Parts: sequence; C-alpha cells; structure tokens
Amino acid sequence: MTAARRAALRALLPTGVDGLLVTDLVNIRYLTGFTGSAGLLVVGADSATLVTDERYGEQASAQSGAYADVVAAVPSSQLDVLASAFGSVRCLYFDPEQVSVDLHDRLSASFTTERRGGLVELARRVKGDAEVERMRMAARIAVAAHRRVLESLDDEPTEAELAHRFAEAVRDLGADGVAFPTIVAAGSRASMPHAAPTDRRVRDGDLLLMDFGAMVDGYVSDVTRTVVVGGSPAEADRLIAAVTEAHDAGIALAAPGVTHADVDAECRRVLRSHGYDGGPTHPFGHQLGLRIHERPFLMATATEVFEPGNVVTVEPGVYLPGSIGCRVEDTVLITETGSEILSAVSAG
Amino acid sequence: MTAARRAALRALLPTGVDGLLVTDLVNIRYLTGFTGSAGLLVVGADSATLVTDERYGEQASAQSGAYADVVAAVPSSQLDVLASAFGSVRCLYFDPEQVSVDLHDRLSASFTTERRGGLVELARRVKGDAEVERMRMAARIAVAAHRRVLESLDDEPTEAELAHRFAEAVRDLGADGVAFPTIVAAGSRASMPHAAPTDRRVRDGDLLLMDFGAMVDGYVSDVTRTVVVGGSPAEADRLIAAVTEAHDAGIALAAPGVTHADVDAECRRVLRSHGYDGGPTHPFGHQLGLRIHERPFLMATATEVFEPGNVVTVEPGVYLPGSIGCRVEDTVLITETGSEILSAVSAG
Repeated sequence: MTAARRAALRALLPTGVDGLLVTDLVNIRYLTGFTGSAGLLVVGADSATLVTDERYGEQASAQSGAYADVVAAVPSSQLDVLASAFGSVRCLYFDPEQVSVDLHDRLSASFTTERRGGLVELARRVKGDAEVERMRMAARIAVAAHRRVLESLDDEPTEAELAHRFAEAVRDLGADGVAFPTIVAAGSRASMPHAAPTDRRVRDGDLLLMDFGAMVDGYVSDVTRTVVVGGSPAEADRLIAAVTEAHDAGIALAAPGVTHADVDAECRRVLRSHGYDGGPTHPFGHQLGLRIHERPFLMATATEVFEPGNVVTVEPGVYLPGSIGCRVEDTVLITETGSEILSAVSAG
Repeated sequence: MTAARRAALRALLPTGVDGLLVTDLVNIRYLTGFTGSAGLLVVGADSATLVTDERYGEQASAQSGAYADVVAAVPSSQLDVLASAFGSVRCLYFDPEQVSVDLHDRLSASFTTERRGGLVELARRVKGDAEVERMRMAARIAVAAHRRVLESLDDEPTEAELAHRFAEAVRDLGADGVAFPTIVAAGSRASMPHAAPTDRRVRDGDLLLMDFGAMVDGYVSDVTRTVVVGGSPAEADRLIAAVTEAHDAGIALAAPGVTHADVDAECRRVLRSHGYDGGPTHPFGHQLGLRIHERPFLMATATEVFEPGNVVTVEPGVYLPGSIGCRVEDTVLITETGSEILSAVSAG
C-alpha cells in the first residue's frame, strides 16, 4: 500500500526536482505508516529516508522500515542526516504552508528548494477501499454513540457530561476514540458554531446541537445533529426542518463532476428559500480522512470537481446569536454514480 | 492578568519595532484568553487586535473582548484586516519557527518583518500563582489517578484498557482530561520510550511503565512511574532503583541558579555510576505549562539558569531494546530556595 503511494508520489516529481520534503506528520503516516509525533521524510527518485528522534527510533523502524530508510538523530542534526542520505539530491520540493521560515533557512544550507504545496494531500483526496472501510466504521460508530447519548438525558446531564458519555460510547463501540473534541451546545449556546461544552444542564425543551466524530485506525468521521430535547417548539422545528432540507439537497447534488462550490451554493439556496440568509457563516463542508479538515472546503471559491473516492462533510448551519442555532452534518462518500452517506442512520 | 501580560510583552518591543505577530494558539490563549482553534493576534504599542474566522466570532468577543479588538473574517482576508487595523505599524516581529514560508510571503505584502522568536514563550516560563495552582492540581490528580489504575490490575487488563481507565479517573477527579495520550508499556515494550498502548495484557511480573498527565484549565502535568506488577525480579529492581536515584538526584540539584544542563548531567552521572550508560536517549526533562513540552529541555546544551516560577519535568530513563526499560518522572516547581515536587505522592 504505502509502496504504491510513494511510487505515485515520485511520479509527480518533474525533471529537475530530485525529491520531496514531507514535514506534515499525517502525510508521513500516510506514506510510511509511522505514527510518532516528530519526524521528517524525504522521498527521492529511488529511495526515501525518514528521520526522527531517539524516542521513536525503535518504533519507526518497526512501522516504516519496509518503506523507508529510518534514522534516529537529535533534531539539530536531522537536516544533516537527510543531506548526507541524499547527497545527489540538489532540488527539493517543499510545502510553503507547512515549512516554517526557520526550517526553510536551515534547509537552504544543503538543498535548493522549490515551493510546491499539497502534493501528498492531493493523493490523499481519493480514498482506497481500505480507507473507506475505516471511515465507514468511524461514521457508524459515531452515529450509534450519539443515539446512545440521546437515550441518557433523563438525569438532565450537563453539556460536558454529554461529551464525556459520547467519548465513552465510541470507545465501547470499538473506535480508537473521538475524532475531535465533541461540541455540545444547548439552548441559545447552539448559536455558537464551535462552542466547547460547559456545565450548563440539558433539559426538556432545549435545542441540543452536537458535532461529533469517531476515529478508527487514524481515520475520522464528522457528524452534526441538532434535536429538541423532549419535544419541539415551533421556531426550533422550523429551523431544523430548513437546515435538514438544505443538508439533504446538498447531498443529493453531490456526485462526480459537480464542484464543491455547487454543493455549498445549493445548501445556501435552500436556506434562503426558507428566509434564512445569515450571510457568511462557515464553509458548509470539507473533505476529511486522516485529518478532520482536509481541502477542499465547500465554499464559493472551491471550483474543484468531485471524483469517486472523495469523502466530504455536508454541514449547512444557521446561527442566530443569543437565540438559537442549528447545524446538520453527515460524512459522505462520493461514489461512481452519486454519493453514499457513511453516517446514515440506517447504516448504524 | 492578561492585560499585565500584554503590557509586559509590549515593553519588550524595541524602538523601530511597532508590533508583534502572534500565531501560536497557546500564546494567543495566554495573552487574550481565547481558546478557539484558529486566530492571529497582533500586539501593537497601544492596542491589540485578534482576528479569527466566523466560527469563533462570538466566542472570541466573549473571551477576549476585554483584552483585544476582536474581528471575525474569512482566512484569506485576515491579513488585510490586521494591516488596516495597524495602518501605522510598519515593522512587526514574527517567530520564524511558527510562521510558515507562505504566511510570511503574504505578511511581507503589508508589513516589514523582523525575525524574533520565543518572546511570549519567555514570559510563559515563569508561572504566576494562579498558574502554579492549576499545575499543582493537574499533578495531584494525575498521581491519584495513576494510583487508582494500579489498584485495578487483578483482571489482567490490556495496556489500552489501562490508558482508558486512567482517562476515566482524571475526569472523575475533576481534571478537564488527560494532558496527552497516555503511554502504557508493559514488559519489553517498556524499552520504547514513547510506546502507544496496545492490546497486550498486563500480568504479574511485568514491568509497567506509564507516562501520564492531567489538564486543568489548559495547564498540564507530566509524570512517569515504572513499577513491577505483583513483585520484582532482581534485574527490574536494580534498574528501577538506579533510575529512581538518578531522578531524586536531579530534583535535589534543581534550584535557582542551576542550569538545565546541570540537572540533566547529574541524572546521567548517577545512571553511569550504576553501569547504565545508554548513550543519547532523550532529554531528561522539559519545561511545561500550557503545553506539555516547553523550552528549555534538560540537555547538555541547555545553559539556561533556573529561576523561581519555572515548572519542569525531571525524567531520567534507561531503555534496553527488546528487553527492559524504565523511566521515572515528576513535575517540579522551582521555588525561591530549591524545588517542590508538584506530583509528589504525599501531595495526593
């Protein structure tokens, strides 16, 4: 698997560029299987070298020895290690969004560099079967855990307790853990799109927004549900129905050949038709995989066309500060003919 | 609190430098109280501006409105917002280790820049009373949770289950959660200094290394204990005694006026006196606070002198790959006269 990924990557290096510097740890994991918290990887024409520090020497050899030469060295000498491993490499691609000014200064002492971002991310956008399987499991577990949490509201738990119960449930259901800190926002707090859970108790009649995900083998899911606890006041009902319709319309449109911007626009069109024109809020979705947020996002400027194997969230939301808020989100796989909701309730 | 921090920071700006760009989220939290996951801060001579995206507009105003002007804007226009807020600012300090090549390119369109790293980190090194109180609580909870976990070994749990039980216990004891993914390594896996927990069961006679911490209000603790489950074979006994002696000697030396390198060297001297000369392993400690790893580290090149208010780990370790490993670590406050072990067992 990773050997094929590396070969595909090397094929992207044009004449005159001898290697690619990879600093992002998720990209390094994708290419070599290494899961440590520090490392640098250079992929050259016919070899790859992973340099990490002494803490991870044994682990890196075990995880990545089949895919790269592994060297453990103190951080201050890691670039020297790479320079001597790639004595014949003169020109390296590097990602200007991921390499700091300081690292670039030091890199320039040994290599000629060329700015070229997003190559590994581009490869990661199309998921293979094994990746989709993990993401499907992460999505099903998240949805099942959320259902379990909703069945535990009788004791009027706090938002923080609900986040904790969700974390418990995903582990119990076989995930590695949560995909990101769970957002739980009740009542008027639901108007803050990314509120951290508090000690506010959740009671009958509250709007309850939860944005949650699970992680399986590093791959994540991302789902949002907004419900009214114990029955629906008319205003909340109207809002949830409109956002759900926007969400459904966005997913119905998502398919190969459609752009990310199209789906975002479709969601906003439906919200406007219901009188919700909140202006700019947040992108109405994003790709995901080994990270919770991967590009492209669903936004007006994202002209990238969907292709089979992309996995993306569709998550329209309306936020009326101080009053009410609602977001509905699913994790969606783009298929040959359309899409599959990985986090569909029926899949749980 | 944060107003004082910002004033102290501004005092560090020399003539000719009009402001400081802060991109690190922990530094932004330290200066403004903002806990969101995206933002840029500029601290100028008589004002500060925090720009974040629409997701966090309401939250940022609530958390940081008293300390900075808060603006929510899409990421692509955030630098323009800062440039117009600081029309008179010509020259900005920026940290070359934290600013990417890409951000620096875009920054250079509106500002003159000067490289100057670590200013906020320097301020963060000396903890105030309120910070020490949070760290003391984080340390006590971590130690108490570890003790609770050690009392639950009768069912031969897996390493992963122990990590989970630890996470449960810290929340139950009132922490926000764990400070970092708990390391649990049993038997010969203890020779991997940063092993992730597996499904290996922990049984009588196993060496059990756990490296763990708790978080309270963002502040963390970091502790390692190595024990033998249900009794000690002589070899493990000898190793644990030597590492514990090194740890105790290092802490006994730690005091104002002593350098970080001195403490590291003292730990290594004791290990050598017992015949453990493993060569380079990892730094034998690091400062901590809002992050789990803060500079300086305990290493030969760290000539920085301790001062009261520093909080540092002392964590010597010996690792014999494939065979056995041991690390003993505490979170230690430097006081006026010496040090206080925040994670001392007696403090629990």
